[in-house]
Amino acid sequence: MEKRELLYEGKAKQIFLTDDPDCIIIHYKDDATAYNNVKKAIIEAKGLINNQISAIVFEYLGKNGIPTHFIKQLNERDQLCRRVKIFPLEFVVRNIIAGSMAKRLNIPEGTKPSNTIIDICYKNEELGDPLINNDHAVALGVVTYGELDEIFAIARKVNELLTDLFKKHGITLVDFKMEFGRTSDGQIVLADEISPDTCRFWDSETNEKLDKDRFRRDLGKVREAYEEILHRLTK
Amino acid sequence: MEKRELLYEGKAKQIFLTDDPDCIIIHYKDDATAYNNVKKAIIEAKGLINNQISAIVFEYLGKNGIPTHFIKQLNERDQLCRRVKIFPLEFVVRNIIAGSMAKRLNIPEGTKPSNTIIDICYKNEELGDPLINNDHAVALGVVTYGELDEIFAIARKVNELLTDLFKKHGITLVDFKMEFGRTSDGQIVLADEISPDTCRFWDSETNEKLDKDRFRRDLGKVREAYEEILHRLTK
Repeated sequence: MEKRELLYEGKAKQIFLTDDPDCIIIHYKDDATAYNNVKKAIIEAKGLINNQISAIVFEYLGKNGIPTHFIKQLNERDQLCRRVKIFPLEFVVRNIIAGSMAKRLNIPEGTKPSNTIIDICYKNEELGDPLINNDHAVALGVVTYGELDEIFAIARKVNELLTDLFKKHGITLVDFKMEFGRTSDGQIVLADEISPDTCRFWDSETNEKLDKDRFRRDLGKVREAYEEILHRLTK
Repeated sequence: MEKRELLYEGKAKQIFLTDDPDCIIIHYKDDATAYNNVKKAIIEAKGLINNQISAIVFEYLGKNGIPTHFIKQLNERDQLCRRVKIFPLEFVVRNIIAGSMAKRLNIPEGTKPSNTIIDICYKNEELGDPLINNDHAVALGVVTYGELDEIFAIARKVNELLTDLFKKHGITLVDFKMEFGRTSDGQIVLADEISPDTCRFWDSETNEKLDKDRFRRDLGKVREAYEEILHRLTK
């Protein structure tokens, strides 16, 4: 399967059409952005590493019954995936309070809540990807209550599976972002990527950050952290 | 029943203890504030008008099966109410998009969504009363999922009853804010006030604003608008 026309270019990935109208090729770039594009950089080899990590994670989820867009890894930077119509929503699952939620509600980072938290953000750069609730999402006309129920059920199952997977490798899954889409035959599937760009990973022993927060917060050793996640998943 | 110690002073009301530990007296002031206290003013007679309007509305809701804190109006500015432990949450029901939601999601004010929207805001002035979702509210430890279910059910019923009441008087109930509390015997009841300070009321024919937006947006004739609501409810 070969790349045809560029369909869409995001911050960290390019999406290409293929000869099959139901398949796309996702190309992982080294570009990193944070704080709604205010901060930008190239993290050398990030695209290679995230392509690998996301392929491993999506294969694992698929084997465990999660419907996903992932078909197979093609090469160092490319994946073949099912073409989907993406819901313009980000679903953030939080097992431990960190990042924007810690700031927004003045809760110390690292606090473990009694419940699992799922945020919805409306993907709209102009508005700063605002936090919304289920009613807002439906009012915006981008999803139905039934679709939200289905997505939340998948999201919770993904959280259980990933928490388990990373725990085995000495990594705490603090929080992570998911995007969902609908295939041409109407199935809701997990799409986008799952990588240190979209998750908060803390070393289970030391709580050392092994994710994009190293870039956001200028903690150094960004590439090394991404490599460490890949290394642990493949050892 | 007479006022004893001042228990709490809010922006628009004072709460006094009484000789009955389960009863408080709410005193309505003329003070108006907006935009998290940035804008302040005295609207002459507002306290009298809101005391009357809120009494009429709470009596109507009580007669229609809504559990409320309201016992009776005592005089021009005072109400006798059941003492409750307030959930530090504001529940905003939206039938038409306006105000902060219009701004936040860049939706034209006046848009009628396909669904009824309920927002939860965390009552915390320092944080700017942020919008939160059900999971956040539970994570904050201020409410349980079961309590939220109960509150949402009451909120939807209140919305139906008030939409109906105001429609009969030529007023569109655009949106309104509610607070809930728990009585000493464990009942969840509607508390606080319902008035032009806490609702958006538009004239059904002209869409003229008859609420606090006249103050927020410097539209003039603030007192007259509040009087008009009372006049229509009592004629």
